[in-house]
Amino acid sequence: MLSQTAEYALRAMACLALRPDELVATSVLAEQTKVPNDYLAKVLQHLSSADLIQGRRGVGGGYRLARPATTINLLDVINAIDAIKRIESCPLGLPNHGPMLCPVHRRLDQAAAALIELFNGVTLHDLIADPMSSKPLCDAKATAKLGIEGTLSDRRPGKGPAPKA
Amino acid sequence: MLSQTAEYALRAMACLALRPDELVATSVLAEQTKVPNDYLAKVLQHLSSADLIQGRRGVGGGYRLARPATTINLLDVINAIDAIKRIESCPLGLPNHGPMLCPVHRRLDQAAAALIELFNGVTLHDLIADPMSSKPLCDAKATAKLGIEGTLSDRRPGKGPAPKA
Repeated sequence: MLSQTAEYALRAMACLALRPDELVATSVLAEQTKVPNDYLAKVLQHLSSADLIQGRRGVGGGYRLARPATTINLLDVINAIDAIKRIESCPLGLPNHGPMLCPVHRRLDQAAAALIELFNGVTLHDLIADPMSSKPLCDAKATAKLGIEGTLSDRRPGKGPAPKA
Repeated sequence: MLSQTAEYALRAMACLALRPDELVATSVLAEQTKVPNDYLAKVLQHLSSADLIQGRRGVGGGYRLARPATTINLLDVINAIDAIKRIESCPLGLPNHGPMLCPVHRRLDQAAAALIELFNGVTLHDLIADPMSSKPLCDAKATAKLGIEGTLSDRRPGKGPAPKA
């Protein structure tokens, strides 16, 4: 459905959304997302080119979200990698189909529209604030490392590690 | 969203659904679907392995649907090429996520479920019987060649070419 690369991009963006005030090194993101470092570096370049993240090189460098997680939806992330495209005219170029599309491509276009609607309606903030399940990509160990309890609404005083490592 | 190969498979199956009583040569299907002949031959092998089509080699050989178009849905065709898979457990193998999934993968699973529902609900017959638009993949010239008016409910006596070429 989505490419593996787009799914990796979603992993990385969810991790960055959990640490909005920090530059996160690629190596740290690679460990958290379980994506090979070199592969992730290319994914991050695409996300940076799409102005979804900002990077800084050198010691202490890394990436952070370019804008608040409330303003980045999943479709933004997916489209930065492999855009989900509506079918606007016959892919075979048949002149008597034109924009009307035949039933095959009309159904495929409906599927694209459904995915666009779904992913457009969910922000990165929705993911990290979701009260119904575990935090994105984080196991207990990773959660402790990330200190995400400092960024989440379900933080309870005196529980868990300090907000910043 | 779908792979190009899956989309080619849908094209080929729609063409075969328009000629349920004939063996259609790969070269004819390649022309109709505008898919390169060698590429299409591999797609057809996958569809045959999935028991969606039956082939016969040699002069006069080709492919036909293995069962009526009313019993083959678009999901069958897509799954024969690149299955749309639900996400049943954490792709990162995080032990505390398990089948509950984190919000990232839960949304991706929702998207997979939506596509499965959509494609499962449409048969090849629905495509060729759709009264709302042009016939699948067929321009006027191709329609005449195929003689599809002999297979469609909107046939009118005395109109169009003979049902069989």
